[in-house]
Amino acid sequence: MASRLSAIERVSAELIATAELVVETRGEGFTDITREAARFIEQSGGRDGALFVYLRHTSASLTIQENADPDVQTDLITALRILAPEDGPWVHTTEGPDDMPAHVKGMLTGVSLHIPVRAGVLGLGTWQGLYLVEHRSRPHRREIVLQFVGSGR
Amino acid sequence: MASRLSAIERVSAELIATAELVVETRGEGFTDITREAARFIEQSGGRDGALFVYLRHTSASLTIQENADPDVQTDLITALRILAPEDGPWVHTTEGPDDMPAHVKGMLTGVSLHIPVRAGVLGLGTWQGLYLVEHRSRPHRREIVLQFVGSGR
Amino acid sequence: MASRLSAIERVSAELIATAELVVETRGEGFTDITREAARFIEQSGGRDGALFVYLRHTSASLTIQENADPDVQTDLITALRILAPEDGPWVHTTEGPDDMPAHVKGMLTGVSLHIPVRAGVLGLGTWQGLYLVEHRSRPHRREIVLQFVGSGR
Repeated sequence: MASRLSAIERVSAELIATAELVVETRGEGFTDITREAARFIEQSGGRDGALFVYLRHTSASLTIQENADPDVQTDLITALRILAPEDGPWVHTTEGPDDMPAHVKGMLTGVSLHIPVRAGVLGLGTWQGLYLVEHRSRPHRREIVLQFVGSGR
Repeated sequence: MASRLSAIERVSAELIATAELVVETRGEGFTDITREAARFIEQSGGRDGALFVYLRHTSASLTIQENADPDVQTDLITALRILAPEDGPWVHTTEGPDDMPAHVKGMLTGVSLHIPVRAGVLGLGTWQGLYLVEHRSRPHRREIVLQFVGSGR
Repeated sequence: MASRLSAIERVSAELIATAELVVETRGEGFTDITREAARFIEQSGGRDGALFVYLRHTSASLTIQENADPDVQTDLITALRILAPEDGPWVHTTEGPDDMPAHVKGMLTGVSLHIPVRAGVLGLGTWQGLYLVEHRSRPHRREIVLQFVGSGR
């Protein structure tokens, strides 16, 4: 396999900084929270390490996806609707037709992820953004826990 | 976008505590391991940081999902069966008809996640539980690595 | 539930080591990067903690899957093709028929995961390997950030 490992940088893991981000969604769709995450890193005093992002809900999720063409988000929502349709053979229907598909979508995409941080900057790829994905039809208030683990400035 | 970032709390990342949790599953379905994870945090002496959970298998997975209505778990299993059916066009069939679907389900849901810890308590949302999902038909013995990274008490 | 928690080991979280791994893929399919990850841990001087792996792209992903029968990888690629077909109802088609399915596959499988490290060794299960999954048809150059958080030797 063609691969290449860079030199290794070492720092002291001296700091854990934690904050909560509350986001009001507009119903089903993507909300870009990249800027909020970058601001958290800046304010946390973190330098080298990783950002851990956690969503405290089960009918929405977190994803890292393309930030260039908004059509990609449209298609990702379409894909999730096909994979977890409202007219599926669900028995949990008491919270509305969009609720059980939302749980399936949440399970498939997840509520926990990390992003590397180098010199106080999020190590996202050129075309990557951090998104909260709302799976319910109506707007919801969503709580996200942001944590930096690494060296301080 | 309507969003709000809380004040940031800072602590020293001084402790990594590690233990292994062995779970006997009853075959396909969810096993709630939230209580075991909370007990680990308690015994680890951890205060503020994060719990990292890792499953050492490829035909089962970890998920954070609703802990209120058991029908949700029934439907999540149904969804996975639809997404990865036993009669799919699989070539890996030597370990039984439930094995390859189990690998697909494992890939879609994952074996690695984290949960924030605040003041020694798991930062799960109100309706969230931590689950081991068994994808094989028969009972299996599953090994999980629990790790706390953060400040000590 | 039948479960058993082992004794807890505690160490100081004193080190974060970071490096970048560049992998040239051969187009759609799995590339085993377990050996590269193990070499990174060895060279990082890390002892007990966790390895965090992050992929800086949105049309490829990371997964931990079976390393025994190569047929499993064939079937996992088949499963992803069924879940995100090239002839789906996509509106983002400017980058070729394989691009939007690649984003869907990336969202379903993820770009961020961790693996426990014990005594300088990756804590993978017996049948687990760490894979970069290329979802685009053609070869691509992919950047992965490897980070060890834990105690030093």
